Amino acid sequence: MNSLKTALIQINPTVGALEENAERIIVEAGRAVEAGAQLLVFPELVLCGYPPEDLILRPNFIRDCGEQLRQLENRLPSKVFTVVGAPIRDETGRYNAAVVFHGGNVIGTYRKMLLPNYGVFDEKRVFREGNDAFTFDAFGIKVGIQICEDSWFPEEAACAALAMKQPDLVVNLSASPYHHGKRRDRENVFSAAAKKLNAPLLFCNLVGGQDDLVFDGGSTIFTAAGETVAQAPLFEEHKLVTDFPNPENFSSDDRKNIDPLEEVYEALKLGLRDYVEKNGFKKTVVAVSGGIDSALVVTLAVDALGADRVAAVTMPSQYSSSETLSDAEQIAANLGVEFHTIPIFPIFGKFTEELSKVWGNTAPDLAEENLQARIRGTLIMALSNKFGWLVLTTGNKSEFATGYCTLYGDMAGGFAVIKDVPKTLVFNLCRWRNKQGVVIPPTTVERPPSAELRPDQQDTDSLPPYEVLDPILEAYVEKDMGIDAMLAAGFDEATVRNAVRLVDLSEYKRRQGPPGIKITPKAFGRDRRMPITNRYRG
Amino acid sequence: MNSLKTALIQINPTVGALEENAERIIVEAGRAVEAGAQLLVFPELVLCGYPPEDLILRPNFIRDCGEQLRQLENRLPSKVFTVVGAPIRDETGRYNAAVVFHGGNVIGTYRKMLLPNYGVFDEKRVFREGNDAFTFDAFGIKVGIQICEDSWFPEEAACAALAMKQPDLVVNLSASPYHHGKRRDRENVFSAAAKKLNAPLLFCNLVGGQDDLVFDGGSTIFTAAGETVAQAPLFEEHKLVTDFPNPENFSSDDRKNIDPLEEVYEALKLGLRDYVEKNGFKKTVVAVSGGIDSALVVTLAVDALGADRVAAVTMPSQYSSSETLSDAEQIAANLGVEFHTIPIFPIFGKFTEELSKVWGNTAPDLAEENLQARIRGTLIMALSNKFGWLVLTTGNKSEFATGYCTLYGDMAGGFAVIKDVPKTLVFNLCRWRNKQGVVIPPTTVERPPSAELRPDQQDTDSLPPYEVLDPILEAYVEKDMGIDAMLAAGFDEATVRNAVRLVDLSEYKRRQGPPGIKITPKAFGRDRRMPITNRYRG
Repeated sequence: MNSLKTALIQINPTVGALEENAERIIVEAGRAVEAGAQLLVFPELVLCGYPPEDLILRPNFIRDCGEQLRQLENRLPSKVFTVVGAPIRDETGRYNAAVVFHGGNVIGTYRKMLLPNYGVFDEKRVFREGNDAFTFDAFGIKVGIQICEDSWFPEEAACAALAMKQPDLVVNLSASPYHHGKRRDRENVFSAAAKKLNAPLLFCNLVGGQDDLVFDGGSTIFTAAGETVAQAPLFEEHKLVTDFPNPENFSSDDRKNIDPLEEVYEALKLGLRDYVEKNGFKKTVVAVSGGIDSALVVTLAVDALGADRVAAVTMPSQYSSSETLSDAEQIAANLGVEFHTIPIFPIFGKFTEELSKVWGNTAPDLAEENLQARIRGTLIMALSNKFGWLVLTTGNKSEFATGYCTLYGDMAGGFAVIKDVPKTLVFNLCRWRNKQGVVIPPTTVERPPSAELRPDQQDTDSLPPYEVLDPILEAYVEKDMGIDAMLAAGFDEATVRNAVRLVDLSEYKRRQGPPGIKITPKAFGRDRRMPITNRYRG
Repeated sequence: MNSLKTALIQINPTVGALEENAERIIVEAGRAVEAGAQLLVFPELVLCGYPPEDLILRPNFIRDCGEQLRQLENRLPSKVFTVVGAPIRDETGRYNAAVVFHGGNVIGTYRKMLLPNYGVFDEKRVFREGNDAFTFDAFGIKVGIQICEDSWFPEEAACAALAMKQPDLVVNLSASPYHHGKRRDRENVFSAAAKKLNAPLLFCNLVGGQDDLVFDGGSTIFTAAGETVAQAPLFEEHKLVTDFPNPENFSSDDRKNIDPLEEVYEALKLGLRDYVEKNGFKKTVVAVSGGIDSALVVTLAVDALGADRVAAVTMPSQYSSSETLSDAEQIAANLGVEFHTIPIFPIFGKFTEELSKVWGNTAPDLAEENLQARIRGTLIMALSNKFGWLVLTTGNKSEFATGYCTLYGDMAGGFAVIKDVPKTLVFNLCRWRNKQGVVIPPTTVERPPSAELRPDQQDTDSLPPYEVLDPILEAYVEKDMGIDAMLAAGFDEATVRNAVRLVDLSEYKRRQGPPGIKITPKAFGRDRRMPITNRYRG
């Protein structure tokens, strides 16, 4: 069999930036050719970014993608074969396609056959399914193409139809978003697909953050026997160049055994950095309370962007302890970020004075607590508006799930970095980060969590301990388990019923929360679409 | 041919309230039998409410629906035929189904063949498509069943397969959401379907509000020639009983020529009422500014709920004019609602005092305007939290589209009643409502719109006049027209480019806005799913 040098080019495009993305493709293709590559593979929909969502429905958008594809014909290296993911439209409909360039022309187009329409995916909304498997000849090697989902169900028609064509090699263009544990699933499934296709499988994944999704890269080469023989790094752009059929260039991937906590941390960093960069923000601001959530977020922000692009502000109430205040100051100092203190009690006093005319002599309750949180939200937004800073909110998944957070208060901001991180994982991420060099005051990690919105308040006044709560939330939210199944699994009935009630009743709050990075198998948001008006309590 | 008395029973179920919905079905079936009906038809998914969204993915939910269906076997009238829309699950998957009851048993089940997965619909996400047309024999009449979308594409397989079975009569169970103009589309399409099926078509539609959707009822009987021979009223529960094949009971529908403005007004009233009722709120609160948007919302609230379930609060700034203040007071008096005044300038002063430490000597800008709006948002949420009132926000579609609104400020609240109503339509709805009896001060309708957040401010300082802006927004948002197409249609280039830029840049704000009622062909939200991070400017 002939040999072929292949390059899997995992790059980080921006949704909608068609011209810039096309330029990147041309530059990277040139570099791959310089490295001797003869078959160049880019990820799924790399030309327009993923997911383009309803942009695909705008006739001009797909037309403009077509214009860029025409320009690529002339501008891509003509002597090699280049496969580019792009949306196309023809008389039969719109398709998620892989376009093959060679000799200054498009020599073929594959239309994705299996369209995911579950979880975060809405591909059936905007694309039509392709009907045919596709191969092309590259220097005597028969190359088959699949796009992401096509390989995920080796028993379905997409793999069966391609296997019939007996390709020597299959490339898979993917935009496969990250969640913890996904990499193992992916390896299992692509290994099975390679065996079914009876051909080496070259998985080329997107990398980068897009709103609530992070694409983790990790492009991988599988043998026809399903063995991993090469893998690109995670969370960064990379060009994986290997020889087919003998990938002698393979050096064992040192990131393959990445610590699971580091993996989540890197996903959060990338998602945060790309949201900030791609939306053109120069600086961010975090409300640091001295608590663990804000400590993690401000540390992530500094690790992702650098200290000069992060401001911290602490907004003490009359219930803030000197310990948390000192921890807030300490972490800002440790990280070297700009630090401001704005007390909220003078403003709170003015609010309650004006409100008393309507509130009358009602006893203090949640309204006063929420009011304090909203004064903070208003203050930090005032800094955001005045200086153009992006507000990073600090709520975690346990709070989002149970509604233990204040709409327009601590939920106010542009990006909710850790909204899909359960509180117990927040603790572990902080401990992991401190092992790399202590920045979070140990007292912040050890102190029992408190919202500090009334005297001597602790989270456990309102919620079960997080080590009890988080497994219940995982069962209910991520695994769709019913109450009966959770009880059968040994969870405490009263705790389960209370947690389920809180999750169901908080849907209206989550609906108004900012976007944030998915790192679990099921995040709130487009991954879990629940009605607000909903009387089901099973 | 035998004759058959049919009842189309358009009721208003609540999503997730399986037991209550089943009870309603039983009670209404009994009443229909008392009225002599022999074939009883309920709307699509009436058992669980529509749309159930991801509740369908929870195994317990569909199991509990199955349990209710089993109870219906015994509890529905046994001598007639009753068709009930419900989700079912079998070994092959989950289906959007119509279940036929007779003689104490389920005698057949139809599985929806065409699943809508565009606009507000996500049915392919949760359901599998049925493969077979279905008929059953009811007292010698061959009755075919379709579910909503099945009839919308008369040339597709669903209609063709059913036509092959030569039904005497076809019933269509629908949950077809309202938008203005939809009724005409529906009549055209069902008329065409009746002709294709060569049989009378009985369209039974859901009625009621569910989050951002309103189902308008208007169940209709079409002859095999596509003529409308009977129609149930819009926006209310109704039982349409007629004789097949001779609907002698037909009385011409006095609501068929409903004023288009009244139609929208009624849709908004029903959507608002059901959001409040189904979520268990006793009372609502509206910030009335003396402007036209809040005037419409507070009037709608009183018309939908009664004056005793509405509170009005006005929160004057230093820039509020005596005219708007007096109009705010006047409309509250006209409507007879509880009225409170909380000035914001003392609080604003305290905020700027504290903020000056960080703001320094910066010139007043948008930050000060947003701050005032957020003080109002915080105040009204303080009333909401203290008294359990639902905050109705007052932003219109033109503002939502262009971002001419403040996140956590005037956007703060639980339900955005007129978020899909363009400003020009707001004016027309106010004028229409005043024709029924003046409640909105004429000065409110005549005064040029202003946010009153800085001296002498008018909306036209930042936006084109609404009669110029609204058609551009309609072209861009509802019709997905590109800039080139809009220019070709004669719109001014600078105005178009500015409007498009504002719409694109405001996606992040809309994402955090409260739900509100869809009344146009394309609303923001699940109807139009755009990325926040998006550099496309075509």
